[in-house]
Amino acid sequence: MNNKPIRVLGLDPGLRRTGWGVIDAIGTRLKFVATGTITSDSECALADRLVQLHKGLSEIIATHRPDVAAVENTFVNKDPVATLKLGQARAMALFTPASLGLEVYEYAPTQVKKAVVGGGHAEKDQVHHMVKVLLPQAVIAGPDAGDALALAICHAHLGQTANQMAALLATGGVK
Amino acid sequence: MNNKPIRVLGLDPGLRRTGWGVIDAIGTRLKFVATGTITSDSECALADRLVQLHKGLSEIIATHRPDVAAVENTFVNKDPVATLKLGQARAMALFTPASLGLEVYEYAPTQVKKAVVGGGHAEKDQVHHMVKVLLPQAVIAGPDAGDALALAICHAHLGQTANQMAALLATGGVK
Repeated sequence: MNNKPIRVLGLDPGLRRTGWGVIDAIGTRLKFVATGTITSDSECALADRLVQLHKGLSEIIATHRPDVAAVENTFVNKDPVATLKLGQARAMALFTPASLGLEVYEYAPTQVKKAVVGGGHAEKDQVHHMVKVLLPQAVIAGPDAGDALALAICHAHLGQTANQMAALLATGGVK
Repeated sequence: MNNKPIRVLGLDPGLRRTGWGVIDAIGTRLKFVATGTITSDSECALADRLVQLHKGLSEIIATHRPDVAAVENTFVNKDPVATLKLGQARAMALFTPASLGLEVYEYAPTQVKKAVVGGGHAEKDQVHHMVKVLLPQAVIAGPDAGDALALAICHAHLGQTANQMAALLATGGVK
């Protein structure tokens, strides 16, 4: 059993506000590290706002040195202007950790809900409640930060399952 | 009259193929510098594809040292998955030059058509024809490269008009 802690950065991208949360996953245990929100100035040009998000994300990665990043693979909505904006913010959430050498994983909202609450159709409030139960020391700054921590938990849980499977396969426990 | 050449990088963003074109605008004259297409490997993860686009764009900027970038502000289409992908590619086309200190301008397709052909509803073929007329030395690698050169021409023409207006205002020619 591999008990080396894995530090996970969860990211809930948005052009105005990108939520982030860092946790350590040690075997089946989770430990809260830090969380917050990066904002971009809506009065600036789009290119400058993307630079602001990149700068904020780079600083968080430099400070907390996560091993991997988990980014929400948001289901596209019906408003194309909002979808384009979200795509631009997501690009920074995917690009920034990848350009700094982190492995980047994407999770759909249903995967996150299933991993954190146990059901793919859970309400937001339930997810945030479970984040607080699983990470009692977390002081969560808002819904985007809560969603980002949920993403980090999702990766830790699914990664844990993948590790166990790999260990079982390696020892011949599963053929 | 300001006759210092301005080097313009035009970008037509796409996740699979981002077209680019560099021209020099000297007063009312245009001079072709270089053009091409950056591609990302569709078998790679999205985060890695964005890193590939960033790397390609950074190399072009380092080689040709443009003063400004002009990026297509594509009108959103009806397919949300395609819109999200386009948003992600556009983010790299906006972010990369801005992060390297270039001024970044966005132009809608109708502005580009009007600036290059004279009418906002011109066909693609007409635009590419005019690009060849205006930049006879250009060897254009494909439609994305042609669109990128059209964006650079659009910025040069509109920038020229803006410069003339500024000069007139400064000398009291327009009150």
